[in-house]
Amino acid sequence: MQFIKIGIFGLGVVGASVVSIIRKNQDLIQSRLGAGLEVTRAVVANPGKPRDISLEGITLSTDPATILDDPEIDIVVELIGGVDLAGEIVLQALERDKPVVTANKALLAERAREIFTKVYEKDLPLGLEASVAGGIPVLRSLKEGLSADRIIEISGIVNGTCNYILSKMTAEGASFDDVLAEAQSLGYAEADPAFDVEGFDAAHKLAILVNLAYGTMVNFKDIHVEGITAITPMDIEYAGLLGFTVKLLAIGKIHGEVVEARVHPALVANDHLLASVNGVFNAVFLTGDNADATMSYGRGAGGLPTGSAVVSDIIDIARNLRAGIRNKIPALSVIQERLRDLEIMKMDRIRSEYYLRFQVFDRVGVLAQITRVMGDNNISIQSMIQPALSDHPDDPVQVILITHRAREADVQKSLAEIAHFDFIAGETQLIRIERFTG
Amino acid sequence: MQFIKIGIFGLGVVGASVVSIIRKNQDLIQSRLGAGLEVTRAVVANPGKPRDISLEGITLSTDPATILDDPEIDIVVELIGGVDLAGEIVLQALERDKPVVTANKALLAERAREIFTKVYEKDLPLGLEASVAGGIPVLRSLKEGLSADRIIEISGIVNGTCNYILSKMTAEGASFDDVLAEAQSLGYAEADPAFDVEGFDAAHKLAILVNLAYGTMVNFKDIHVEGITAITPMDIEYAGLLGFTVKLLAIGKIHGEVVEARVHPALVANDHLLASVNGVFNAVFLTGDNADATMSYGRGAGGLPTGSAVVSDIIDIARNLRAGIRNKIPALSVIQERLRDLEIMKMDRIRSEYYLRFQVFDRVGVLAQITRVMGDNNISIQSMIQPALSDHPDDPVQVILITHRAREADVQKSLAEIAHFDFIAGETQLIRIERFTG
Repeated sequence: MQFIKIGIFGLGVVGASVVSIIRKNQDLIQSRLGAGLEVTRAVVANPGKPRDISLEGITLSTDPATILDDPEIDIVVELIGGVDLAGEIVLQALERDKPVVTANKALLAERAREIFTKVYEKDLPLGLEASVAGGIPVLRSLKEGLSADRIIEISGIVNGTCNYILSKMTAEGASFDDVLAEAQSLGYAEADPAFDVEGFDAAHKLAILVNLAYGTMVNFKDIHVEGITAITPMDIEYAGLLGFTVKLLAIGKIHGEVVEARVHPALVANDHLLASVNGVFNAVFLTGDNADATMSYGRGAGGLPTGSAVVSDIIDIARNLRAGIRNKIPALSVIQERLRDLEIMKMDRIRSEYYLRFQVFDRVGVLAQITRVMGDNNISIQSMIQPALSDHPDDPVQVILITHRAREADVQKSLAEIAHFDFIAGETQLIRIERFTG
Repeated sequence: MQFIKIGIFGLGVVGASVVSIIRKNQDLIQSRLGAGLEVTRAVVANPGKPRDISLEGITLSTDPATILDDPEIDIVVELIGGVDLAGEIVLQALERDKPVVTANKALLAERAREIFTKVYEKDLPLGLEASVAGGIPVLRSLKEGLSADRIIEISGIVNGTCNYILSKMTAEGASFDDVLAEAQSLGYAEADPAFDVEGFDAAHKLAILVNLAYGTMVNFKDIHVEGITAITPMDIEYAGLLGFTVKLLAIGKIHGEVVEARVHPALVANDHLLASVNGVFNAVFLTGDNADATMSYGRGAGGLPTGSAVVSDIIDIARNLRAGIRNKIPALSVIQERLRDLEIMKMDRIRSEYYLRFQVFDRVGVLAQITRVMGDNNISIQSMIQPALSDHPDDPVQVILITHRAREADVQKSLAEIAHFDFIAGETQLIRIERFTG
């Protein structure tokens, strides 16, 4: 029996799961691959640290060269995270003609051009399934399952922490801060949750989805990113009254040579399947011009689901090795000569419907003045609710307007103008309403 | 530019869509494949028939040999349906070393052994993505995305006609017959709907899913198949009162060397995502030992979605041809030596919770007698509702029992015994309740 030899950088939660899966399902993997898999080397920061898995058969080192320069290593797995050292490891492995599997979304999003240029230059596979939506094989769907389709739209719930928090806030009417504290105690949110709740993790994943869908390498910094920290139980309640659920969405679309790529909270109609995706689960809608709407759903994080994706990539690459080929499918779905430079659309150019919650002192003519400004800016109103009047005429009340489809620039201009009225009692809340093609 | 040449058997709805997609997305496909695709020959029953697509560049014939014996044809696409002629075409194409793509679920389910034995013997790819759940790349998820996982459970809504009918019955309280008539007028159901509504189409798809999940070729005839014709608006209403939705499910599980493979209506808890899959849409849950629950959702039928799956298979095979290999991934997920003979579990051995609706004359002691029989057969009751009493003491009333997990044999024995009581006013309705691992 041939054994494909693997060197892993990083034996944290995912790395340890990869080792466990390969051991536990060795016989199954052999039945599918016709060869065995064997982790022979690992490089870690702290070799003395106690670990949950047995290290039998694995040579541990702190020196990357022990993996990179070992001619016996067939596949390199990068699971240390971060963009600097991880980037060097991936580039050097490729330089030495070793195929790479990585779960590193930050690296793939922020250093896309360097990494993928090297991948194309070497014509090697780069396993990246684990980088987006953990155990859900959604990147494979994009590169293979929908290879006959022009991708019209990507809409994903790709951050489990945010989805857990929003789901709990929705189910219990609880505040963001309370649910975040609970999520932290359950291990669903990091001690420093900013990276998740501010939307950056979702933006990394969106960059990868957009790059694969459109055969490009967008500038990550141009992605518009808003998190969920400003979402209140009140907004969730009013959205519910109007038939919507609040979700943090990663949205990708294409218009000629310009792509929309944005992460922000959005109102999703309750009868759309994304509204039913709750808790830590992830789901990605991919809409193709032939297949129409498809959705992939599952666990977006956790050692075993992410490890499953890593090992499936290892098996895929091992099948290449067994077949005697370097690579079968281009890393970004298209061949190198057909990669495109696509700009990300400036946010003020996008069009959407909007949920706007004004906090106003309840005086005569307030609504007329707000709607006049909006009308002057080409925004028409779909519906209005004023959920509860205060007993005290001096307390502010909430006025919620749902707009028809409008330009973001016009909406922002309206809000800036309306902010000057002296009946405005606080910051206006803006949440975009996402409608779907499929 | 190299052009991969394709011969298509059948230019019906799907065949015409394949031709259209290849033409419409030719440039896109070239960017992904590095080569073009070209349908050069088609074999049809009636070459003179008017068609919606231009036949320019396609040589039409009624003679299979024009494709099978043409050395220029790189890939054979079988879209004529049926198991006899289609089977011969697929076998002969393989015999001539031509890779095949087919959407033919009946053929793959009913003649699995012949077809897959030939596929393995020739070590050729067999594209079959379109055979299950049309535009949803779920078979690819099974063969590639979850290749590191032991598949614990398959649960799918894989027949759009049944799901449309059940969704409509649920939304509108309408009868099966009325909704079926409407579905027929909208083209969602065939003039002869038996094949769909009796569950056979779903059973074909289940056979394929089970074979791919477990690396086997089950005997299709052993799959337990029940359709939806006996589901009444009353059952849907009572299920709703109890927190469930009625769905036609295709269920596959494994217990050692025995698989469960069954198609029947089932009660799904409303908070499970499958309960939110409505209309003609399909969805397949695949639960792996590492990835946990994953779901693929989308359009399970229609020319373009199915055509999209066919063309994605063509591209996949063309990528093999471009890479200079015959095949990369074993047809049934495992290498030939590791195929297993797995028996399908006899239905009386399965275990489930049950929804039982008894029609009884409302006399003293009825419930005591029913529950005594069930208790004697090791069945314990989870809950009971008796939704409405009649004004006329002689009219039958409905008593609904939800059982705890019980053996099918015990439940059937109880029902046979209970049928003899003289307070029983009609046939007892049995619907299994499906709980999910993931």
